[in-house]
Amino acid sequence: MGIYVLIHDAWHTGKELEPTASSIRYAGHQVHTPTIAGNRPGDAKTAGLDDAIKSIVHYLAENNLRDVILLGHGYGGMIITGVADRVPARVRRLVYWNAFVPDNGQSLDDMAAYVRLFGSVLAQRGDGSIMLPFPIWRETFINDVDLETAQKAYDALNPHPEKTLVDKISIMTNPKDMQLGKSYINCTEDAGLPDRHPWHPRMSQKLGVFRLVQTPGSHELCISNPKRLALAITDAGRD
Amino acid sequence: MGIYVLIHDAWHTGKELEPTASSIRYAGHQVHTPTIAGNRPGDAKTAGLDDAIKSIVHYLAENNLRDVILLGHGYGGMIITGVADRVPARVRRLVYWNAFVPDNGQSLDDMAAYVRLFGSVLAQRGDGSIMLPFPIWRETFINDVDLETAQKAYDALNPHPEKTLVDKISIMTNPKDMQLGKSYINCTEDAGLPDRHPWHPRMSQKLGVFRLVQTPGSHELCISNPKRLALAITDAGRD
Amino acid sequence: MGIYVLIHDAWHTGKELEPTASSIRYAGHQVHTPTIAGNRPGDAKTAGLDDAIKSIVHYLAENNLRDVILLGHGYGGMIITGVADRVPARVRRLVYWNAFVPDNGQSLDDMAAYVRLFGSVLAQRGDGSIMLPFPIWRETFINDVDLETAQKAYDALNPHPEKTLVDKISIMTNPKDMQLGKSYINCTEDAGLPDRHPWHPRMSQKLGVFRLVQTPGSHELCISNPKRLALAITDAGRD
Repeated sequence: MGIYVLIHDAWHTGKELEPTASSIRYAGHQVHTPTIAGNRPGDAKTAGLDDAIKSIVHYLAENNLRDVILLGHGYGGMIITGVADRVPARVRRLVYWNAFVPDNGQSLDDMAAYVRLFGSVLAQRGDGSIMLPFPIWRETFINDVDLETAQKAYDALNPHPEKTLVDKISIMTNPKDMQLGKSYINCTEDAGLPDRHPWHPRMSQKLGVFRLVQTPGSHELCISNPKRLALAITDAGRD
Repeated sequence: MGIYVLIHDAWHTGKELEPTASSIRYAGHQVHTPTIAGNRPGDAKTAGLDDAIKSIVHYLAENNLRDVILLGHGYGGMIITGVADRVPARVRRLVYWNAFVPDNGQSLDDMAAYVRLFGSVLAQRGDGSIMLPFPIWRETFINDVDLETAQKAYDALNPHPEKTLVDKISIMTNPKDMQLGKSYINCTEDAGLPDRHPWHPRMSQKLGVFRLVQTPGSHELCISNPKRLALAITDAGRD
Repeated sequence: MGIYVLIHDAWHTGKELEPTASSIRYAGHQVHTPTIAGNRPGDAKTAGLDDAIKSIVHYLAENNLRDVILLGHGYGGMIITGVADRVPARVRRLVYWNAFVPDNGQSLDDMAAYVRLFGSVLAQRGDGSIMLPFPIWRETFINDVDLETAQKAYDALNPHPEKTLVDKISIMTNPKDMQLGKSYINCTEDAGLPDRHPWHPRMSQKLGVFRLVQTPGSHELCISNPKRLALAITDAGRD
């Protein structure tokens, strides 16, 4: 069976992916849900994208993981792209789940324009981190649950290091040219990428030959329906 | 529980929304389905967009409705936009269901080009009203039912006052800047907006921050599956 | 009940549509699954688009079929367009299933750019035929089944005559102006048309007034879920 490593989104930790991981394990796979540097309890919020990528490269080495199905959610797409570029031998397939797909030299903000669009409402916390206000998050990221679930999920978020969103990635090989399996999971009710620019095909087409999996749900399907997400992940991750 | 006011599409009356309203009431909400001026039995077909909007403003006042979840279907999007602009204090959230989202100065026809596209086939009735021929309506608006259901639904339609479709709306605040909740329900098989311009994201993006709800079905989901529509409406309308 | 004639995709024969045909027959319809010239066992691989179209025109005449609901899958869209142009009196409705919709003078390759995109990986077999390598086919055409099913389906394919993909179609009437029913079935996980150009609405909008039917599934829904495909076909084919 497969070895899945699930990389969370900005403002999250690996903990929010545990219900999904549990469903994938139930199908017989091994699943890891590490937390990226900058989002771990106690981490300095001055972490940059390179620190973030390094922390997952380190996790794979420390646990001696090879032949990994490496999934990234949202911002996690930046991380798995960087990891696959640095240690390709450890990765069997990349799975982008409503995730950013950067080419060399691009930052997340180059693709999302969050700072431009949400700039005035992003709460700057003075330690290098930013938070999305609850009303925006509830409407655009977790639009498929009731208010109580949304509020509870929001309370579990942690302030995100802004530098990781504006740092430009440095990779040798763009995703299109990476010689490994690539999949894109698109939650069809995810309106978290602003304006006319949906995740699929805007991001997915940057993968070259890739496998598409779509499923109903918001950007936070890990909270609204982790079992359905687990099924999409194993459909995306199998050979 | 919520107070829902459902505003019908062109060629319709509130009656066609009754099965949907009934399902929403069953979940404990209060639901109103008024008919817009120009579509009520006996109305002059010379009504314009301002008459149409005023009739719903009047309905809200007459029934002393506040904190309303105001839904508009198709042409109904013109109406709810105008109502929210005039009596914002009465509205809690706007829900556009495969509906037009106008900015100040736009007419429905500016966005749909129906007159240009369907002009030669639109039946002019000599009293200011127009009808879509059955074959176009069956193929593009109610593509998810059998022929008998489509024919029966068509027979219930009423000629629509053309002026309401070409009048330009006059509002103080564009939807993007309105300070209230906004949702967009997109029926994924609705091909009623011609050519390359789907309802979502073409119309939805004009809302600024909004909540997306998608569901399978045609433009006439109120006829093909009112229970599924009711569920989408309550998902879109809740806080 | 209806008379359905199902025209297969490139690399296929009518045999792969039999499970789907069987479900449609079970609902009381008559169903034919002829194989296009160039894909029949023993056919020369030098066949061109005109030979391919003629073979289906001949099939309809030989079986004295009239009032036909004529479905085309992928490349089959080229064939049914040509057939409807030559013998319109035999056709009641055209159903395009993730299919190419050509205007006069267009080739399949003009719309798909397969030769440009996949050119270097298309296996030339020296007899006029080409094959897609398994990894590309598995990822982009049959992304919704397990590896064993994908491999077995691939083994049933036959080398496709390249000339049929690059020949430009010659028709008197473009699909938009054809006076007969037109439907488009879109499998939402079909990523077989490269880059930013999805089948719907890119191809469907070329039909003018048409009926849209969407269903989850890959380009090869005839293999991954023939019952669901049969349901989509009868929804698309009914009056």
